[in-house]
Amino acid sequence: MSNSNDIDRLIEIMARLPGLGPRSARRAVLTMIRKRALLLGPLAETMQTVARTARECLTCGNIGTSETCAICRDERRATGELCVVEDVSDLWAMERAGVFKGRYHVIGGTLSALDGIGPEELSLPRLKDRIEAEGITEVILALNATVEGLTTAHYIADMLEDSVRLSSLAQGVPIGGELDYLDEGTIGAALRARKPL
Amino acid sequence: MSNSNDIDRLIEIMARLPGLGPRSARRAVLTMIRKRALLLGPLAETMQTVARTARECLTCGNIGTSETCAICRDERRATGELCVVEDVSDLWAMERAGVFKGRYHVIGGTLSALDGIGPEELSLPRLKDRIEAEGITEVILALNATVEGLTTAHYIADMLEDSVRLSSLAQGVPIGGELDYLDEGTIGAALRARKPL
Repeated sequence: MSNSNDIDRLIEIMARLPGLGPRSARRAVLTMIRKRALLLGPLAETMQTVARTARECLTCGNIGTSETCAICRDERRATGELCVVEDVSDLWAMERAGVFKGRYHVIGGTLSALDGIGPEELSLPRLKDRIEAEGITEVILALNATVEGLTTAHYIADMLEDSVRLSSLAQGVPIGGELDYLDEGTIGAALRARKPL
Repeated sequence: MSNSNDIDRLIEIMARLPGLGPRSARRAVLTMIRKRALLLGPLAETMQTVARTARECLTCGNIGTSETCAICRDERRATGELCVVEDVSDLWAMERAGVFKGRYHVIGGTLSALDGIGPEELSLPRLKDRIEAEGITEVILALNATVEGLTTAHYIADMLEDSVRLSSLAQGVPIGGELDYLDEGTIGAALRARKPL
């Protein structure tokens, strides 16, 4: 294709990333090569560092560069609140929102009998341990509002019932959302959860 | 965000690539970290190699790993035909089609008075030199079928008029194309260029 094995190989690996296909990988690689000092060099260097240092936090499952992530190390975040999320990307989304001051527990997916994903695979036993060990008083279930997320949230709620206060994120109209573009389920949930003014 | 400077920096640089935004860059980086041996390691290594070796062919403008690209080095491709394309990605697209057996000339864009891109910036003088030096008998203009591409093709055609046979890619219905999804311009061009059966 480009008549260079290395460039072809780079395109081929880039095309395996989520959100990229062969065509966008080619475009990305051409841009990288053209902006070598700005993109290709720094990318190669940073990837090398991250490949060496990135690791999962042994406590919460967040991805960082130490055995215990910055959130789990931060004593000010021992608020007794624990937010359960499906994925590291959800934890990062919560952090970008900047409103939650407690700690997290990444379960890494949803329960699925079909795919053989049970409570053990989702580190739910470890969640139970943490609640006792860390003196957690409230667990906020921030799983995705999908069928799988809701099923998993139900399971966790049953498991923790008497040991801790439980809550989940409110459902309703997103900020800036237009009714005309929302599905019926969301509108129904927003109506049922309506608030007096 | 991820509470790791290196990971945040990697996401930030990835988000600058065409076709990726902050969200897809985060997803891509998480996937890379999870598939370290398959993605992050090989990517870092290949990028380092490409950053060191990638270069523009001094003759045609193709991107490869040597001063003269494999196509310009291949004596079998000295057919007297020269295909003029806007961009390296267009050259690669032609090569994937695998039907053109001659050599290329990448002009690197289109003429634009507004952006100050004149014949010099598009290596058109070098195109003229090559035609004499390499004994080119036919120049195939394979510029994009956009207004800018057509304008540039006209300019090149005027410039080369008496020195060489000129042609351009045929316009018409793409293979597998459905009339209902084609614009009027394409249908019109296909009708005007209709062929007797």
